[in-house]
Amino acid sequence: MKIVAAKKIVAANDAIAAGNRARLRAANVFTVNLLGSPGAGKTTLLESLSAACDRLAVIEGDLATARDAQRIEKLGVPVVQVNTGGGCHLDANMVASALAALELDKVELLFIENVGNLVCTAGFDLGEDLRAVVLSVTEGDDKIAKYPPIFQRADAVVFNKIDLLPHTDFSLDRALADLKRLAPQAEVFKVAARTGDGVAAFATRLRQRMER
Amino acid sequence: MKIVAAKKIVAANDAIAAGNRARLRAANVFTVNLLGSPGAGKTTLLESLSAACDRLAVIEGDLATARDAQRIEKLGVPVVQVNTGGGCHLDANMVASALAALELDKVELLFIENVGNLVCTAGFDLGEDLRAVVLSVTEGDDKIAKYPPIFQRADAVVFNKIDLLPHTDFSLDRALADLKRLAPQAEVFKVAARTGDGVAAFATRLRQRMER
Repeated sequence: MKIVAAKKIVAANDAIAAGNRARLRAANVFTVNLLGSPGAGKTTLLESLSAACDRLAVIEGDLATARDAQRIEKLGVPVVQVNTGGGCHLDANMVASALAALELDKVELLFIENVGNLVCTAGFDLGEDLRAVVLSVTEGDDKIAKYPPIFQRADAVVFNKIDLLPHTDFSLDRALADLKRLAPQAEVFKVAARTGDGVAAFATRLRQRMER
Repeated sequence: MKIVAAKKIVAANDAIAAGNRARLRAANVFTVNLLGSPGAGKTTLLESLSAACDRLAVIEGDLATARDAQRIEKLGVPVVQVNTGGGCHLDANMVASALAALELDKVELLFIENVGNLVCTAGFDLGEDLRAVVLSVTEGDDKIAKYPPIFQRADAVVFNKIDLLPHTDFSLDRALADLKRLAPQAEVFKVAARTGDGVAAFATRLRQRMER
């Protein structure tokens, strides 16, 4: 029986993530790790972004099914589905395998859509340049305070389903106050991925980051 | 350094869960493990249920904050907050500690609200009599197919935020077809926890289960 401690798993992951990062940078690919709860709207955001972004590719992480990859494939965007088989997050090794299935010389912007999970995904570097957490307003304005680690490590927080705000008790003021206190580094975007509202601003900012 | 393998962790958990179950049954307490994504509406469902249920108590599981426990305490319901400090699910040992803080002779129905997580919570028995997964329609109708283990182990699936159905693409037919295929054992409830719609039917069914 093989026993591996949690600390060793993270250290091994970090080494593979560094390899992914080197490989992606050598290929001039800017990589975004896209995180959020199940149903936050990560795939819908990618569908909406695909219209505003050239030379895009996607890695889809899910416990099961290829449903998300099928949605992305329909748009003509290169996509690789990773099934974790029950695992609650992607790791750098899964991403390394997925990278082998992409033609990186045709890609400038790579999104890695992680498993829907506001906890486990926070601890695993995949080799990304930018980490974005999607938080839908239908989840409630207390999520930043209740799940701090993922937000503390985020470069961007995308408030999604803004179109549903009038039908919820969500207070943007309360959420932004928690974010300022717990994760002041995170840039804020407000979008309705389903209608496309606000998505262009997020795409523009990504392009600025790519050109740095 | 102490190293513990995943299989051993689950086996140790199961033993403690069996102890919890024996203790709760001896005290005539019916226990529900309440699961779901972050923001599925678990706490709001408990708030709504508190009006329809006597001799209720709640154990609240969260990474951080006592916000959920404060909401329950306001209703005059005995509540214990467990903070996992980053952990992605409650385990039987945490519940055993929480039970020590409750006066079980005053309780007939105990809800254990797990950490918001559609993956990790599935694998851990807490000693409950019934396992209920809350799935809000704003999360999308593909969640049962994409996160099968938690639904396969559910006794009940509570579709929540039914009042927001007209504002989403959620198809109850698609979700129910997946549920029938993957988790035919699960009883289905449709509620709007925020308005209280459908909550009485869920409470009535719980009482029937308690009387068996």
